[in-house]
Amino acid sequence: MIDFYEIIGLVAATLTTASFLPQVYKTYQTKQTEGLSLTMYVMFFIGIVLWLVYGIHLKSIPMILANTITAISALFLIFMKIKYK
Amino acid sequence: MIDFYEIIGLVAATLTTASFLPQVYKTYQTKQTEGLSLTMYVMFFIGIVLWLVYGIHLKSIPMILANTITAISALFLIFMKIKYK
Repeated sequence: MIDFYEIIGLVAATLTTASFLPQVYKTYQTKQTEGLSLTMYVMFFIGIVLWLVYGIHLKSIPMILANTITAISALFLIFMKIKYK
Repeated sequence: MIDFYEIIGLVAATLTTASFLPQVYKTYQTKQTEGLSLTMYVMFFIGIVLWLVYGIHLKSIPMILANTITAISALFLIFMKIKYK
């Protein structure tokens, strides 16, 4: 049986990941990356990778899922920023 | 003694929170909120509050710290969006 708090975590993961994806899609569509700071995204990316390591340590499925998707998205934004700067 | 993974979590918390704060500061300074989607920020805010509940359940200091600061910041952006729309 899935723990009540794991469901809370999964809903949290879905909401915060889903609220980040429109930014990724918009950047992909418009190729406009002026609004994005490279330093900020690199910091964010490293932070997310560390959250992922921490989530693996805690054996937290919601943290592992959310941070894997967000890390890939952030890496994609960094790639777009470098390509279309 | 502080656990090695708690330090990883604290660095993660610092990086992801710090990468969110310039957006808050920029919005406060410029009062320009066109780039912000209210729906997205409300979704994000609810997600962060659920991460906070999940973090309290896991007794994770990094998650409690990061999500408290981010929840307050997101609430502030929602307030700015409603006030200056």
